[in-house]
Amino acid sequence: MPKHSMSRRRFLQSTGAAAIWLPSSVKAYTSSEMQALYADGVMQQDVSKWELDTPALCVDLDALEANIATMQTTMSRNGIASRPHAKTHKCPTIARMQIDQGSIGICTAKVSEAEAMFQHGIDQILMTTSNVTSTKIRRAMTLRQVCDGFVQATDSPSNARLLSEAAAALGIDADLVVDLDPGGHRTGITPGQAALALAQLVDQLPALKLKGLLCYDGGSQHVVGFQQRKDQTLGRLIAASDTYDLLQQSGLNTEIFSGGGTGTYNIDHETRGLTDVQVGSYVFMDAQYLGIGGESNTEVYSDFQTSLTILTTVLNDQYAGRATTDAGAKACTINRPWAIIKGESGMSYSSGSDEFGTIRYDADPSRTYKVGDKLELIVSHCDPVVNLYDQMYAIRHDKVEAIWQIAARGMSA
Amino acid sequence: MPKHSMSRRRFLQSTGAAAIWLPSSVKAYTSSEMQALYADGVMQQDVSKWELDTPALCVDLDALEANIATMQTTMSRNGIASRPHAKTHKCPTIARMQIDQGSIGICTAKVSEAEAMFQHGIDQILMTTSNVTSTKIRRAMTLRQVCDGFVQATDSPSNARLLSEAAAALGIDADLVVDLDPGGHRTGITPGQAALALAQLVDQLPALKLKGLLCYDGGSQHVVGFQQRKDQTLGRLIAASDTYDLLQQSGLNTEIFSGGGTGTYNIDHETRGLTDVQVGSYVFMDAQYLGIGGESNTEVYSDFQTSLTILTTVLNDQYAGRATTDAGAKACTINRPWAIIKGESGMSYSSGSDEFGTIRYDADPSRTYKVGDKLELIVSHCDPVVNLYDQMYAIRHDKVEAIWQIAARGMSA
Repeated sequence: MPKHSMSRRRFLQSTGAAAIWLPSSVKAYTSSEMQALYADGVMQQDVSKWELDTPALCVDLDALEANIATMQTTMSRNGIASRPHAKTHKCPTIARMQIDQGSIGICTAKVSEAEAMFQHGIDQILMTTSNVTSTKIRRAMTLRQVCDGFVQATDSPSNARLLSEAAAALGIDADLVVDLDPGGHRTGITPGQAALALAQLVDQLPALKLKGLLCYDGGSQHVVGFQQRKDQTLGRLIAASDTYDLLQQSGLNTEIFSGGGTGTYNIDHETRGLTDVQVGSYVFMDAQYLGIGGESNTEVYSDFQTSLTILTTVLNDQYAGRATTDAGAKACTINRPWAIIKGESGMSYSSGSDEFGTIRYDADPSRTYKVGDKLELIVSHCDPVVNLYDQMYAIRHDKVEAIWQIAARGMSA
Repeated sequence: MPKHSMSRRRFLQSTGAAAIWLPSSVKAYTSSEMQALYADGVMQQDVSKWELDTPALCVDLDALEANIATMQTTMSRNGIASRPHAKTHKCPTIARMQIDQGSIGICTAKVSEAEAMFQHGIDQILMTTSNVTSTKIRRAMTLRQVCDGFVQATDSPSNARLLSEAAAALGIDADLVVDLDPGGHRTGITPGQAALALAQLVDQLPALKLKGLLCYDGGSQHVVGFQQRKDQTLGRLIAASDTYDLLQQSGLNTEIFSGGGTGTYNIDHETRGLTDVQVGSYVFMDAQYLGIGGESNTEVYSDFQTSLTILTTVLNDQYAGRATTDAGAKACTINRPWAIIKGESGMSYSSGSDEFGTIRYDADPSRTYKVGDKLELIVSHCDPVVNLYDQMYAIRHDKVEAIWQIAARGMSA
């Protein structure tokens, strides 16, 4: 046995231990130490978020809860429902909170996400992407076998036939929605007669049950300016509403007509027939959404609060006009606009380096940083940022209240 | 107990099982099925890479081995060593291959990477980033306690004093290199008298051992054109070489003078005193490096082969001039240039959508794709792509030979 094996065993034992050396009275906790302090769903000791090892992904509970409440209030007022997209948070705990507050289920983009959500107790799942390979169809049908609330999308007659064959072979009925293209030509079938024919096929094929339609207008979510966004998305959705009418006139089931997102959540109810919005980012918000402007606030999209942040530490302060942190592209992505330093002004952040972030000071920064200082970043684009982390710290009044597993992290298959 | 709990248990049992339904004779394997087929380090049955569920990260073994051999041949000819950066692959198996073929150890960017590598048997580790917080210093010193080959970087006198205090408290000696700024002002101390003073301090402080210098010129690695790259990096490293001289003249230890990367691997030996290159991307290559041009091939940097690819599946082929795949930003990142479709021409790929990739056909594409077709992508920028996956499939002649854990995936702390 090589020399390092004994040492390695000793190391493995030691890394979970409490702090054995501290240069000051500051407490500080690694992620494994935090896991050890979080027993039976309760933090066993007070830990400030500022004591966390960095980079660390944090979600502010007051802000998150307020966002979920705001969404539910708006949905109730507008007479539609929310079916939040779990591709954003990939976190069963948040999915449960959304459903408990009135959401009618969740969406997932990938079958692996749907499996992970079901394994963690979420059983109302609309998978918004078509499954086209034998592997994916098998996974989806295996999930449907045990999850009555699993609904799949399809966007072509040949795919519908494969799904029918697969469901029949398993002796189950699979619930399907027809995915309509809003004009971006990314996924979905063309609205109108082609979509009607597909809906009729799904309705007729053995072992399939038509549940309705899906039309996600991703291209309109980040249009800057509320009125411009409203005009674009309502215009794009006309063809989908017309298809909804065609299905209704043909006596087909339209109990689901799902679409919309965080950028259009208070617009989508004006689309005739729409039953629910697939809102994702509203739980967290991010720099991309802040910039689009809202109905009441034309400068900043302030309908929801920025609950998701990354904590980072300054590593180098030796050079004029800048500082270097430990949160680069692998902690923040390289989405634009860059992350925003929370609560400060006169400085900008970039994460163009894989391992390092850069703070650049303008002429009149609200503060400067020293080595070891921690700062908090409003994330650039929440979905791919969350996908970089295995867990997020749930924070209330700057204290860690819980540690949530991002159970579907990395599940792109 | 809620209704879905029984179902969930049944589901958990069923998802690991072999295929229960296939629409054709095509075999197809999910990642968990592949893990089950890979026992005792040997694939128990032949699986083609084209049978893998997608997105899947693959490394071609012939190409990987050739890259490691090319690097070693060049290092031997030039009289320096390689100390490959594990931030690129985050994979202990590849680190072991590099060391077995002549590399003198590995580098890591983060202490969590160093811990993961040591836990998997790699015991010659140069951590190239300074540890500045009590948490990180404690982690680094705990690792040093059991890993004789762990060397840390420092770039300020105050940090060196903290490291000395920490090492003394643990009763160990910590090996240090002084990190020099090559001019990018990201990390490191200014070369010259400031660096000499820091080296002298490290040499004098209790519980620290000076091992030498580190100067990573990241800003020169992707300069387009071999001669331009050579001129820039050799010019930038002059101050580091002068600092090396100052240390030597002062009788200080310079056994390590580490720097350079994949873009300058065959240039760095001309920097006086340099002992080893921190090459990372050469094992995989990517679209970013292909574009910089090499010494012999001015158009394409062809010194190394493109071993790392992403397999993806076409989800939608209904719209003219394009097709949609299942590998978007969460599978490919949004680094530029975009991923390249391997072996094809007359088409481009983009991964600007979080969940979907887009193929766009030019006027004369080498082929077009149908729904369900798989294709292979040369990655855009290997480091952050690898960081999205838990495992990579090691492929030889299109067959899966092994499954390698990306043990330091997500380790940005």
